Amino acid sequence: MESGTSASSDPGPGAPGAAPDAVRPVRRRTGGRSARVRTQVLEAVGAVLLEAGYDGLTVDAVALRAGVHRTTVYRRWRDVGGLLADLLDAAADDTWTPPDTGSLEGDLTALNQEVYDALAAGPGLTAALIAASFRSPEAAGALSRFWEDRYARCAVLADRAAARGELGPPAPGAGGLRALLVTATAPVYQELLLLRSAPDPGLPRRAARAAAAAARAGAFS
Amino acid sequence: MESGTSASSDPGPGAPGAAPDAVRPVRRRTGGRSARVRTQVLEAVGAVLLEAGYDGLTVDAVALRAGVHRTTVYRRWRDVGGLLADLLDAAADDTWTPPDTGSLEGDLTALNQEVYDALAAGPGLTAALIAASFRSPEAAGALSRFWEDRYARCAVLADRAAARGELGPPAPGAGGLRALLVTATAPVYQELLLLRSAPDPGLPRRAARAAAAAARAGAFS
Repeated sequence: MESGTSASSDPGPGAPGAAPDAVRPVRRRTGGRSARVRTQVLEAVGAVLLEAGYDGLTVDAVALRAGVHRTTVYRRWRDVGGLLADLLDAAADDTWTPPDTGSLEGDLTALNQEVYDALAAGPGLTAALIAASFRSPEAAGALSRFWEDRYARCAVLADRAAARGELGPPAPGAGGLRALLVTATAPVYQELLLLRSAPDPGLPRRAARAAAAAARAGAFS
Repeated sequence: MESGTSASSDPGPGAPGAAPDAVRPVRRRTGGRSARVRTQVLEAVGAVLLEAGYDGLTVDAVALRAGVHRTTVYRRWRDVGGLLADLLDAAADDTWTPPDTGSLEGDLTALNQEVYDALAAGPGLTAALIAASFRSPEAAGALSRFWEDRYARCAVLADRAAARGELGPPAPGAGGLRALLVTATAPVYQELLLLRSAPDPGLPRRAARAAAAAARAGAFS
């Protein structure tokens, strides 16, 4: 997920900015009136969630912010859960691919940096969506789907690492790949989201280094 | 934190049951009337939070459940944030020490098992308190204090591992120890709390094994 602040540096549609654990609001403006309305409404969902939190997130507030009729929002998204789920599903509908830096540690560091940037800048959309997932089962489901999709896209990252001999034989299967990605990225969430530690710019690389070392030792094989 | 279900197997006061990331409601019943009231009230906080969530957690509901006058609760705890913070501070006031299994991987697996047991059994107090921390700054602060205290107590675990040569020279400092503990435990939180994956009994050991492998490789030195 992209924090509100970093959205300003958004390089545009389809940019590989979202982490396996990051969400970027849809920016596409192609398509007809229906697509335009969806973009307006989902941008409004993100804006209202950031400003007013889950407690302030109502269909009426979103409709007002988006400048569309509330009936339109109720008909298409039904409720706040539907809005949050669609925001996350739309964020997954991009062309993101994992970073390719030439080494496993570098790739994992770059992934972690995206998560870090989204969480360390202070209250952002990422943290707001995760907080909302504790209150809306639909948001929780959509968040899980988003992350699983990101993990699946990272298979190529593991293939490259295996080809470079960075994964200690035997090559990990899908479960091992997922465990590697979770080991690399989970400390960033833990420190910034759960422990609420002061941001430490060394964290993305440190967590990546540990996961890469474990991978070399065959811990995910 | 201890889930509601596992509380039934609570071995009693002072037992080393809580994980570096786990909370157990106070069970002590020693002390005078004031201590008794605190125990009753904090048990009621946990019970109401589990049953009705943060939205149902009010001073009045807690007072009713605890069988004490609401004025008593308002005077001593002020509000829901004060109640949650005291519940967490009280949970930290125990004699918990980290597991000592004879190996770093074993110790980290045992730690992870405590976190796993608290989170995998379904909706429990652990998850409810973490969810509440997204809404109450006081609960968030108390949760951070609780975890930091648990990490600090785990220094002995790292000392033993270093003495056994499991930490690859040079021995990690306090920052490295903390990173090791976060690397070991964060995947359990990530999978069960954020990704909401189906419980996998192999998870505690797998995450511990990866962290121990990284430690042997000197990733936290």
